[in-house]
Amino acid sequence: MGKPTLAELSPVPGIRLSTVSAGIKKPGRRDVVVMEIAEGAAVAAVFTQNAFCAAPVSVAKHHISQVSPHYLLINTGNANAGTGELGVKNSLACCEALAEQCKCEPQQVLPFSTGVIGEHLPVNKITAVLPQAVAGLSDAGWEQAAHGIMTTDTVPKGQSRRISVDGETIVVTGIAKGAGMIHPNMATMLAYVATDAKVSAEVLQVLWREVVSKTFNKITIDGDTSTNDSAILIATGKATLPEITSSDHPAFAPLKQTIMQLCEQLAMDMVRDGEGATKLITIDVLGGATQQECDEVAFTVAHSPLVKTAMFASDPNWGRILAAVGRAGLENLDLAKIQIYLNDVCIVQNGGRASEYTEAQGQQVMSQEEITVRIELNRGEFQTRVWTCDFSYDYVRINAEYRT
Amino acid sequence: MGKPTLAELSPVPGIRLSTVSAGIKKPGRRDVVVMEIAEGAAVAAVFTQNAFCAAPVSVAKHHISQVSPHYLLINTGNANAGTGELGVKNSLACCEALAEQCKCEPQQVLPFSTGVIGEHLPVNKITAVLPQAVAGLSDAGWEQAAHGIMTTDTVPKGQSRRISVDGETIVVTGIAKGAGMIHPNMATMLAYVATDAKVSAEVLQVLWREVVSKTFNKITIDGDTSTNDSAILIATGKATLPEITSSDHPAFAPLKQTIMQLCEQLAMDMVRDGEGATKLITIDVLGGATQQECDEVAFTVAHSPLVKTAMFASDPNWGRILAAVGRAGLENLDLAKIQIYLNDVCIVQNGGRASEYTEAQGQQVMSQEEITVRIELNRGEFQTRVWTCDFSYDYVRINAEYRT
Repeated sequence: MGKPTLAELSPVPGIRLSTVSAGIKKPGRRDVVVMEIAEGAAVAAVFTQNAFCAAPVSVAKHHISQVSPHYLLINTGNANAGTGELGVKNSLACCEALAEQCKCEPQQVLPFSTGVIGEHLPVNKITAVLPQAVAGLSDAGWEQAAHGIMTTDTVPKGQSRRISVDGETIVVTGIAKGAGMIHPNMATMLAYVATDAKVSAEVLQVLWREVVSKTFNKITIDGDTSTNDSAILIATGKATLPEITSSDHPAFAPLKQTIMQLCEQLAMDMVRDGEGATKLITIDVLGGATQQECDEVAFTVAHSPLVKTAMFASDPNWGRILAAVGRAGLENLDLAKIQIYLNDVCIVQNGGRASEYTEAQGQQVMSQEEITVRIELNRGEFQTRVWTCDFSYDYVRINAEYRT
Repeated sequence: MGKPTLAELSPVPGIRLSTVSAGIKKPGRRDVVVMEIAEGAAVAAVFTQNAFCAAPVSVAKHHISQVSPHYLLINTGNANAGTGELGVKNSLACCEALAEQCKCEPQQVLPFSTGVIGEHLPVNKITAVLPQAVAGLSDAGWEQAAHGIMTTDTVPKGQSRRISVDGETIVVTGIAKGAGMIHPNMATMLAYVATDAKVSAEVLQVLWREVVSKTFNKITIDGDTSTNDSAILIATGKATLPEITSSDHPAFAPLKQTIMQLCEQLAMDMVRDGEGATKLITIDVLGGATQQECDEVAFTVAHSPLVKTAMFASDPNWGRILAAVGRAGLENLDLAKIQIYLNDVCIVQNGGRASEYTEAQGQQVMSQEEITVRIELNRGEFQTRVWTCDFSYDYVRINAEYRT
């Protein structure tokens, strides 16, 4: 499968970044990123739902509930997760050091960590490089930051978009790192997106929750959720366009669509870069009675190791998809109404193999690198889309050998 | 991991079995089993929860709701699943042929099929061998039947127990075949257990539901559920002991315990025989506030591919277990109260690595073939036990290459 390539990343007025090396896990590796957010910006955040959230997630949640963030401090090489009270102290110590350096309050710093679980954060290594990081802050720092937040990702991931509203240009730039579900001990999903549009904090948070729920929360490699997943959206307000305070604003719809598409691209890039992944699988569920049941069907299919190994083998094994739909737990599911397609080929109809389906048709679809499974429930108006990848020998190798 | 061996199987008065070859998938393979149940027996049944249940499951459910079964007709090589209306007709045709042969009503025959999904049942091949099958019925037919219901199982699975109550002997014999979750297109979980005790139909059904929920429903390989899973318990009533009509009967408790232990053994044998499985993992969850939350935690850990690949690698990667517990969806989970053990070694305490834990201790446990993960939630009185296996290269190989 083709690896994503890093697009040229446009600066976002009001954002400066710096990437330095603290030698947290490996000497010389660029493993600390500082992002500076200009005053007056609005910041929206979505964090992992895992009850065992890591220390930096607890600290970041608390800080953002107090004041608007002025700095983001990101380290790789150590997740500071499963580290108890000392983990929280260590995370706070890093925030305090950066705050002192930048003459702000510690609560104005949000910490993010990704890497090995259960080892204590080397605070001194991180604080030692903060003066260098602050000195290096630049609005052209996005590409380096996209590299700096990588762990086991094989390529950096970033996207920029420009839109025009009423003759004014707005820029959106975002960077992300590998889906936590691929290597959850090391490759937390982190995403940072910024725009120079001016958006009220309330509108920004609602918009961001919806975008995350339809993009980053709709990719899955193996169903495991990282303890450190975090996604941040910043609106610096440096653009000349009037503030967006409701969905009636003419810039709201185009801005939301742009951020949605950008994040969809970043999310799919994460799946494509999953080690062991040889195929990108899109699962569309249509005609559900509720949003929740669409999601349940889509994720049950996406998480089925039997479906995923069949995808790896390019085997149009429709019985496995049908069995996964059947065990998704939907009440009163009428089998006779369900249709399942591989791309445009109907494989299941009336509770069994579609009468006109031939194995050759299925084989032709399955041999491709990007496959869409469409499941039509025909019992309502809801739908969902989920992305996943196949399950290969390399998945087992990578995850069995990860710590050795 | 050591493969289970077939114990000597005691006849059960009132049960006769016969195993013949119909050449359904491969010529010469013994693929049809007939079990005759003496009149006056009580029969309890539990079927798959998968909404896409196979045609024979629909037919068997309907038949047992009408009359008490007199014959069980089992075939391998073809699951008769995903076959629509013709599948139901074909299943009924087999029941009718056996009923005609045996001079009983078609509703007194319960059909069971296991094998490839989506191909139509070769009815003529099956009906052609029924005279031979009926002629060969014998109370010594258990071992051959244990072989006859195998698909991809590498060894037959069967157990017998004898208990004494008030000087009377009761026998319990059971056979089973491979967990459907290993090869769900072919290896449905089927289990047939019989005793000569006399038990009322109501008591038998309640007892059987409880046994199945604590044994066969507590094993999982990859979370997938077969469309054909069926488990049958027969009480022929040929023993001289008075009928068991309530749990107050002196034989009730020992009989239930014996059936429970026998089915627990059969269930673990299925996990041990999972192709690709190199380890038997027992997951105990204690101290839950409800039964349901114990099950959710246990199955979330048991289904985590990251936990399972770590088990395969003998890697005491406690962070993955902790992360799986964290995403099981429990409300108000207090991390500080949770303890996790590998056998007797405490690995997680107070939300992080146990202070006295050393990697060498974890490594020592993980190098064994049978490992118990104990998760103490410390928030209630409920508990559960689940069995699973690790995730190996062979799992991917078997499931990727299954149809080629």
